[in-house]
Amino acid sequence: MPKAVVLLSGGLDSAVTLACSVYDGNETIALSFRYGQRHTKELVSAKAVAEHYNMRHVVTDIDMSMFRSSLIGNSKEIEKDRTNIGKDIPDTYVPARNMIMLSIATGLCESVDADRIYIGANSVDYSGYPDCRNEFFKVFEEMIKKGTKAGVEGRPIKIVTPILDLSKSEIVKLGKKLNVPLHLTWSCYSGGDKACGRCDSCILRLNGFKDAGYKDEVEYQ
Amino acid sequence: MPKAVVLLSGGLDSAVTLACSVYDGNETIALSFRYGQRHTKELVSAKAVAEHYNMRHVVTDIDMSMFRSSLIGNSKEIEKDRTNIGKDIPDTYVPARNMIMLSIATGLCESVDADRIYIGANSVDYSGYPDCRNEFFKVFEEMIKKGTKAGVEGRPIKIVTPILDLSKSEIVKLGKKLNVPLHLTWSCYSGGDKACGRCDSCILRLNGFKDAGYKDEVEYQ
Repeated sequence: MPKAVVLLSGGLDSAVTLACSVYDGNETIALSFRYGQRHTKELVSAKAVAEHYNMRHVVTDIDMSMFRSSLIGNSKEIEKDRTNIGKDIPDTYVPARNMIMLSIATGLCESVDADRIYIGANSVDYSGYPDCRNEFFKVFEEMIKKGTKAGVEGRPIKIVTPILDLSKSEIVKLGKKLNVPLHLTWSCYSGGDKACGRCDSCILRLNGFKDAGYKDEVEYQ
Repeated sequence: MPKAVVLLSGGLDSAVTLACSVYDGNETIALSFRYGQRHTKELVSAKAVAEHYNMRHVVTDIDMSMFRSSLIGNSKEIEKDRTNIGKDIPDTYVPARNMIMLSIATGLCESVDADRIYIGANSVDYSGYPDCRNEFFKVFEEMIKKGTKAGVEGRPIKIVTPILDLSKSEIVKLGKKLNVPLHLTWSCYSGGDKACGRCDSCILRLNGFKDAGYKDEVEYQ
């Protein structure tokens, strides 16, 4: 049985990605990060999703407090109602985030003899993020080949991006098809009891459910 | 004035590398990691070296407790008096260590508008480590170009490896030439009051000083 490490943020995309790994027949380990998010609601969701699948869940810390991004710590407010989704690099870009998370996932793969990393990156809704593009993942795989024991010994580690080219409504449909507990996931940039319904992430999610013809069972303000 | 981030472990190699960045005319920020080393002696040395140069010193945490390596936490003892230095991948290899550290350095570069990372990797003494080779650093630079805001906007971040091809005695000589406070550095894998003088790292260091014709002012057991 092949073994996979799946990056699990607790959002919709990563939960569906995790289900893809299970569906693909991998023994799956979930990996989540505390990186100074403005709230830990996502991590509560990640835990709930991993428990739903009864799998090993590694939660680890990365200190990104010295990084410049609106998503981290005490920096400026996240813009709301932005109209340029997908047009430029958003201020929610976190420097080197996927690079750091994939590097730690690589180390975990080497430590548990896993040979693939699943990441719920999406180039449709997040076309502005350089580290959500296929060409980044391809060169990352090359880097793993050159820079790890596994790589130089002929056991390359693959980066698998099952939802990279899917629209949000296709992701919702795939999640429904794979019986993902979507009601356990959290997408909102804010961390209240209910999702705000107005941030980029909520708008994308709500439109996705609407276009897919499903009701989002997460509560909104 | 160009700006650089230097990975500073507190050992001989990284201290000389830091001095190279200063000598090259960079405004230099030192970056050190707590990653579950068996002792924190190195970090005390890193702090002393950064203070000597009166520069900003960022110390950050990486949780590698789930990684498999003799250098981390409670895993098995480090082999001593190994006779195969440079022959295979040593059990002191830490999965994806340089990959993770360079990724965090990349994020810091983007956050402070630095365009180069100095790392004291050495392919002579550490030829067994896949992530200490030039071909790894080259593909890492490509990966930065594809996966960061700085990279896609035409501000690539370079990896600089000033001591990559130097022997240990050449590193000692360079350190002496640049007036590096070598007495403040710590190389021993053990964390006692005095260096053990018997581990791989001590042996390499002692031979380096001897071959360079200098006395190592660090105390040995």
